[in-house]
Amino acid sequence: MPTFLGQNQYGKAENRVVKITRDGATHHIKDLNVSVSLSGDMDEVHYSGSNANVLPTDTTKNTVYAFAKEHGIESAEQFGIHLARHFVTSQEPIRTARIRVEEYAWDRIAVSGEAEHSFVRKGQEVRLTQITYDGTSWEVVSGLKDLVVMNSTDSEFWGYVKDTYTTLKEAHDRILATEVSGRWRFNWSDDEQPMPDWETSYGQVRQHMLQAFAETYSLSLQQTLYQMGARIIDNRGEIDEVRFSLPNKHHFLVDLEPFGLKNDNEVYFAADRPYGLIEATILRDGCEARIPVDLTNL
Amino acid sequence: MPTFLGQNQYGKAENRVVKITRDGATHHIKDLNVSVSLSGDMDEVHYSGSNANVLPTDTTKNTVYAFAKEHGIESAEQFGIHLARHFVTSQEPIRTARIRVEEYAWDRIAVSGEAEHSFVRKGQEVRLTQITYDGTSWEVVSGLKDLVVMNSTDSEFWGYVKDTYTTLKEAHDRILATEVSGRWRFNWSDDEQPMPDWETSYGQVRQHMLQAFAETYSLSLQQTLYQMGARIIDNRGEIDEVRFSLPNKHHFLVDLEPFGLKNDNEVYFAADRPYGLIEATILRDGCEARIPVDLTNL
Amino acid sequence: MPTFLGQNQYGKAENRVVKITRDGATHHIKDLNVSVSLSGDMDEVHYSGSNANVLPTDTTKNTVYAFAKEHGIESAEQFGIHLARHFVTSQEPIRTARIRVEEYAWDRIAVSGEAEHSFVRKGQEVRLTQITYDGTSWEVVSGLKDLVVMNSTDSEFWGYVKDTYTTLKEAHDRILATEVSGRWRFNWSDDEQPMPDWETSYGQVRQHMLQAFAETYSLSLQQTLYQMGARIIDNRGEIDEVRFSLPNKHHFLVDLEPFGLKNDNEVYFAADRPYGLIEATILRDGCEARIPVDLTNL
Amino acid sequence: MPTFLGQNQYGKAENRVVKITRDGATHHIKDLNVSVSLSGDMDEVHYSGSNANVLPTDTTKNTVYAFAKEHGIESAEQFGIHLARHFVTSQEPIRTARIRVEEYAWDRIAVSGEAEHSFVRKGQEVRLTQITYDGTSWEVVSGLKDLVVMNSTDSEFWGYVKDTYTTLKEAHDRILATEVSGRWRFNWSDDEQPMPDWETSYGQVRQHMLQAFAETYSLSLQQTLYQMGARIIDNRGEIDEVRFSLPNKHHFLVDLEPFGLKNDNEVYFAADRPYGLIEATILRDGCEARIPVDLTNL
Repeated sequence: MPTFLGQNQYGKAENRVVKITRDGATHHIKDLNVSVSLSGDMDEVHYSGSNANVLPTDTTKNTVYAFAKEHGIESAEQFGIHLARHFVTSQEPIRTARIRVEEYAWDRIAVSGEAEHSFVRKGQEVRLTQITYDGTSWEVVSGLKDLVVMNSTDSEFWGYVKDTYTTLKEAHDRILATEVSGRWRFNWSDDEQPMPDWETSYGQVRQHMLQAFAETYSLSLQQTLYQMGARIIDNRGEIDEVRFSLPNKHHFLVDLEPFGLKNDNEVYFAADRPYGLIEATILRDGCEARIPVDLTNL
Repeated sequence: MPTFLGQNQYGKAENRVVKITRDGATHHIKDLNVSVSLSGDMDEVHYSGSNANVLPTDTTKNTVYAFAKEHGIESAEQFGIHLARHFVTSQEPIRTARIRVEEYAWDRIAVSGEAEHSFVRKGQEVRLTQITYDGTSWEVVSGLKDLVVMNSTDSEFWGYVKDTYTTLKEAHDRILATEVSGRWRFNWSDDEQPMPDWETSYGQVRQHMLQAFAETYSLSLQQTLYQMGARIIDNRGEIDEVRFSLPNKHHFLVDLEPFGLKNDNEVYFAADRPYGLIEATILRDGCEARIPVDLTNL
Repeated sequence: MPTFLGQNQYGKAENRVVKITRDGATHHIKDLNVSVSLSGDMDEVHYSGSNANVLPTDTTKNTVYAFAKEHGIESAEQFGIHLARHFVTSQEPIRTARIRVEEYAWDRIAVSGEAEHSFVRKGQEVRLTQITYDGTSWEVVSGLKDLVVMNSTDSEFWGYVKDTYTTLKEAHDRILATEVSGRWRFNWSDDEQPMPDWETSYGQVRQHMLQAFAETYSLSLQQTLYQMGARIIDNRGEIDEVRFSLPNKHHFLVDLEPFGLKNDNEVYFAADRPYGLIEATILRDGCEARIPVDLTNL
Repeated sequence: MPTFLGQNQYGKAENRVVKITRDGATHHIKDLNVSVSLSGDMDEVHYSGSNANVLPTDTTKNTVYAFAKEHGIESAEQFGIHLARHFVTSQEPIRTARIRVEEYAWDRIAVSGEAEHSFVRKGQEVRLTQITYDGTSWEVVSGLKDLVVMNSTDSEFWGYVKDTYTTLKEAHDRILATEVSGRWRFNWSDDEQPMPDWETSYGQVRQHMLQAFAETYSLSLQQTLYQMGARIIDNRGEIDEVRFSLPNKHHFLVDLEPFGLKNDNEVYFAADRPYGLIEATILRDGCEARIPVDLTNL
């Protein structure tokens, strides 16, 4: 046979699970989209179609729902850790489990009475986590996507290379806007280490990232990106690596001169495509990169 | 010629305009998606291709950007009114102008310093308005889409018709969730009438709608829908008609018995398709319906 | 009560049904997305939440699947007719049924052997139909969406109105491209009339529409649109009304002069937003319009 | 400084370029979406915001359009090779260029006359390529996405692991359907080697892949996946590695027994989420894997 099998993985993707926890009349929601991916001793199912080592993807789906009841959902990270440990330790042919979770946030609807069971989906960023376990060590990468931010001033772009194909004019006051997709890797990797408080960590990382975006006087989106990552690592000891993929959501100043009007940084056209795309990793001194170059959603 | 031309309209759709207003160091954003649609004496362009009566769609785009400077953007409704009036009064062949606007809300990013020019897109509902003007009277229909809400209890569904094809079990405690698409028509139609305060009206309608959703003990999504519409009309004298299109975002209780677990209204599967779809109009006594049966986004 | 209920309808939307018919080793597919919408004596469910007149949306879903077995799926139109008739005639409170269907086409994969059960989704336009029945008369509106077409020449645009906001230059050779969304209404309305051959009709309408697009030397997209509709009505006696919604998918000639290059109608930028949007109805002489001004997908 | 910069890249994404080539009255289209990503000596722009080494993303966009004129677009691969070579050889700070291209296919519209300038977008798969060049060696990975295929029989699934959470019943005749996302790596890496015929290669790979899907009697989707990859490598000497990401588009047999009907593999519910997801790499003997585990679109 002139070919052979390389890396492979399988599982059930996008299991939508909503967990309601009742604390008297007050309800709490966790709303997740969970994807399971397993790998291990799976040569035969590829070569001959024998499923003798294959736990059905349908079973991995059932496990997600059963675990939501058995373990609850304290955080997306903790839930993924329960699942990953289960698959690797309960099935001999499975060597590695990777659990990806999207989480959707909900706010409470304020009502005049006392009942606390009404919610409106927050609809801002989607929170993400990916748990990987090989039976020995853990890798936890969390993040977010779809968070759109804008500075309406304090951004410039000039002093760049000009070649034959350069027509862009330098800008000394422009809008800087992007849709943040970010991932950050925790240095927790071992059951012996104390686990971070995943919920607190997420809120703090998000806050530092937003503040760095807002407070950086920007000479390039790359500079802003680096500040966002460095601020996270400086402030959060549990994180060693951050990667961002930042599309430059261009807002072009509209030329109103043909209509006898002066556009003093007031009226912009928000463009769709093409867009600049800036991607980079920021690392804690002494650490190595493990987050892939291409971020994938879920 | 055995055929003839019926209703027709044309214009430039989805003009993305962002307006920054500077109040010292504090900036304000309006972020709109504006679609222009014009109709009138346009037979010839269809029959022979003569463009003698056609204002180019490119010109309607330019007008949107120029008006953002000339008139500012006080509200989506007010901006649409300026545009509609302009097209109908400035071009003889144009008899009717319809302006549709989507508006995206932004929150401020809190920073330690004083600068107020950093924003994060709210990302919840999209606000909508449609302005129609025929040179004499106005029709203003505003609304929203993409607002996802959930009650985790206080919803039942039983006592329905059973036929040969009915297998559904009655439910006495279920999740009720929907993604609200709503439109409401103002009774302002005439330049002689005082204009509503469009921004206040939107905030109040949204609030009444959410509260009605939260406070209704629901025996059917139809009942909840009616309460949402009636609450708006009862509280907002400027509105005569409301229409909702409410997909029933099914959350199915997962059967955990095969795993020896009891699911006491805790763990749900959030389904995509198919979904129940409930649509209805609520009217103020004595008023006639004008909002179309099928709501369209933008 | 100062409010009352207007038009209302409900049902199960987007029931995805795939029907395999086995003709020996040769299989045939019908792949549909079926949405049911019912209306009638439904005041009480809105006012008080009584479901006594409500056939559950879950039952309407079951009926779709049962009918795929009981009646087969000869065509989307015929299948919708079976469903609509059933709901109106079997449930007294239901006065009107509207069935919408999307259909996805599949091609066969050619193989060396004899088996004929392998398919690749065609992936071009989505075929549509909407059946409405009130117990007496039928309305059948069929159509398509997502069909992208382009003429790379034989299109001009000049001689239009110029106002203060006009900057567009006249074009004497441009690309004309659009994504066709079309609907056509059959004059079959009565069980006494012979029914059209729905499959043949669809193929013929599509063909006439494409040929009219290709063969019209275009002075405006409106002119092309009218020719597309008129060609259908001229050639297909079963159709009385056609409506199109045609976004002008702009292809802008890129200015290559800054790089010392001449762009002789060769290199274009395909833009996303904004876009011209041209909409119109074409009618057979003596007929009235019934297709709504805003086309909705499904 | 306790942080440092890791892998980074930047460029203009999603440049939509349409090239018309006129061969007398007969026109030819190439319709691409081109994304440029550059990396090299870019520390300063991240640390201090100095753009001294930065070729603007706007310039990379201009280069795409200028090259469409200067070099034409023979194939997506050849076009990407021109671009990658240019960026690496013309700008000293740029060490590596990665060009990604999506290509959309068009068919001709048959007309009665002779003119050959009317097209309908094929709308099936999107063709992909990614060119990476570091000044010395080339890596070309091509592929496709969005190709939906189905076998309506000749698929089984049984003999799998059963654990506490397994409820799935074994299947001896099921529908097997997937939406193919595939990538294949060429062994061309050096300007000294003769280049493959990129257009022929694409057509042949696609054909072998489809035939392997159709002709494999499947005991698992993994087995089918492996056959698809092996068939490509066996038949196409220019390719050393193939990776597929195959969602199992579940078609569930609908239980019609409650309605007194027997469903003899005829009526299916096509589900959206969750879905099985099967991913694997197939390699030529002696070759190493270089395609990333997570496929990204464009």
